[in-house]
Amino acid sequence: MATGNPFLDTERRPHTDGAFHANEVGLSNRNSGILLETLRHDVTPAGLHYLLNHFDVPFVVDRRWQVEIDGRVRKPLTLALDDIERLPARTLRVTLECAGNGRAAMTPRYPSMPWVHEAVGTAEWTGTPLRHLLERAGLLDDVVEIAFLGADRGFDRGQEHTYGRSLTRDVALGEDVLAVWAMNGAPLLPQHGYPLRLIVPGWYGMASVKWLNRIEALAQPYDGFQQVSSYMYRAVPGGPTAPVSHMRVKALLVPPGIPDFYSRQRMVEAGPVELYGRAWSGAAAAIARVEVGIDGAWHQAELEAPQGKFAWRGWRFKWDAQAGEHELSCRATDANGEAQPLQPRWDSGGFGNNAVQRVRVTVR
Amino acid sequence: MATGNPFLDTERRPHTDGAFHANEVGLSNRNSGILLETLRHDVTPAGLHYLLNHFDVPFVVDRRWQVEIDGRVRKPLTLALDDIERLPARTLRVTLECAGNGRAAMTPRYPSMPWVHEAVGTAEWTGTPLRHLLERAGLLDDVVEIAFLGADRGFDRGQEHTYGRSLTRDVALGEDVLAVWAMNGAPLLPQHGYPLRLIVPGWYGMASVKWLNRIEALAQPYDGFQQVSSYMYRAVPGGPTAPVSHMRVKALLVPPGIPDFYSRQRMVEAGPVELYGRAWSGAAAAIARVEVGIDGAWHQAELEAPQGKFAWRGWRFKWDAQAGEHELSCRATDANGEAQPLQPRWDSGGFGNNAVQRVRVTVR
Repeated sequence: MATGNPFLDTERRPHTDGAFHANEVGLSNRNSGILLETLRHDVTPAGLHYLLNHFDVPFVVDRRWQVEIDGRVRKPLTLALDDIERLPARTLRVTLECAGNGRAAMTPRYPSMPWVHEAVGTAEWTGTPLRHLLERAGLLDDVVEIAFLGADRGFDRGQEHTYGRSLTRDVALGEDVLAVWAMNGAPLLPQHGYPLRLIVPGWYGMASVKWLNRIEALAQPYDGFQQVSSYMYRAVPGGPTAPVSHMRVKALLVPPGIPDFYSRQRMVEAGPVELYGRAWSGAAAAIARVEVGIDGAWHQAELEAPQGKFAWRGWRFKWDAQAGEHELSCRATDANGEAQPLQPRWDSGGFGNNAVQRVRVTVR
Repeated sequence: MATGNPFLDTERRPHTDGAFHANEVGLSNRNSGILLETLRHDVTPAGLHYLLNHFDVPFVVDRRWQVEIDGRVRKPLTLALDDIERLPARTLRVTLECAGNGRAAMTPRYPSMPWVHEAVGTAEWTGTPLRHLLERAGLLDDVVEIAFLGADRGFDRGQEHTYGRSLTRDVALGEDVLAVWAMNGAPLLPQHGYPLRLIVPGWYGMASVKWLNRIEALAQPYDGFQQVSSYMYRAVPGGPTAPVSHMRVKALLVPPGIPDFYSRQRMVEAGPVELYGRAWSGAAAAIARVEVGIDGAWHQAELEAPQGKFAWRGWRFKWDAQAGEHELSCRATDANGEAQPLQPRWDSGGFGNNAVQRVRVTVR
């Protein structure tokens, strides 16, 4: 290497001023979030599902794609797409959220993608349970984790790596972890992992590796950058860490009325207004309760029928809007009794912020 | 109105500090740009075409949509989607760019969507020439402009309005201005104007009104907010204005190598590298020349075959990358002899910045 690694200079210090930085805006322009008004769709239409891509989207224009399965297996093998698509298929409706959703509300703020609330979406994913691939290769008895590597490569905090994540053997062999080739009934879009990706229902999105082209069975825990250096909770600077895994319980509401273009403040007509939103939880799929806050007073929302084990649940609440300024919010509780906090819990990487959303509206 | 208009307080003053503001990041998260690496696709895949929506995306889930045509016409009428889709259809491949693309590079910067380079995309739009609709209603002789109104409504700088734009009679009757119901062979996506929108090839995107539900023939120029208060060039604060119309000539390159996640700086392997990009121009569709800048020295790029009158043109250049730090850039010239400036031309609303893109790379 002739020039050393200039990206070591990009070690990132948290932002402590109120303003945002050019690199954050660059990421914000690259990555995209759901438009909150489109939470009304049970399944998020193409192009509205959130996207967080660490590196470049690979340019793949044909189906000559292979997945290598190696490491601690009886029979290392290479599977073509056609081989994989002939395995038993399942379609699951799954809500995915980025672990960094809500990062913009933390101070100091880790320099990364400054999500406010938008990093969520629900899709119907079609693929084959991963265990069918693993069983063809045959995991050896000493396997404890399976690593999944994508075709995307780059630097983060000075470390060059291919995007990779792992799952424990038990999780990887579960019936709901899929190797996926279709989204909402169509081939995967390039930015969503064409031609093959992982979907790990219930987990934050970082586990669902895109552009999957290598699976490695390991007799020891995977030590890739995205597993051990990124995506770790750390509640106290320099303190102990814990791995990011399942999505925390959360609800979002569709801001009612009409917006101001720049501030996105809302204007609502006085009278009955139906507030609508979604709620989800990874660790316990079932949403037990959603409450709607009107100027700080909490009211029970009506839940729609569940849409399966891994998808968000709709909810609604009839509000009699009176002229004046109001703050609307919503708070979900899951079947484990976990509820959203009223204020963000700080995290050094900006992960896991499931504090309640607050929407300011003017009623006229 | 019980409470006055609180959004008058949101009159926006230009940002003069280097930092970005929370409202800008909010817009950046809402709107989405193309990923520069996906410039390689002739037609931008769904979900990667840029999006700039002023207000909320309407929630439209059935085909009960009507377009009213009224004003100075012989026979005011209401057309259903089925009526419109039975009119003679055309498909045009069109590159669209947001007039605010490049706004982030201007100082002072108008508080709006802080695009860097990403607000562009190319799609195949299917619809009927607008003149078929206008002829059914019959324009009266005194008509000078036609106004197009969408279903989206909100505030901007304190003024409540429905999104609307106009075209002069001559432009509106041209064969290439389409009332569109399909994008890339599929029904319009909600965020791209489902079920019906305008496409005005060659113009910046603001002219291509989405969620089109009213067409009004006017005997005087249209005075809607988006026509006369927004989308005006103003090169000197308080100075004269000129309407924003056709896309200025521009080229973008796919950043080579692999990125750093946060800074998006690039690492490239030494040796031959094929640089690839796109170039387009609205006023003169034909791109005459693209030059590639390597550390400030300009070289001729090879142009790919044109893809029709309104779509971007591919170009490529073989670069022998030598170890070290480099700056890559590209500059297009159109058939009218218009070329991109090396530095942004300041504009009070941040419109029309077609200054050359600069990409820093490290070669190892």
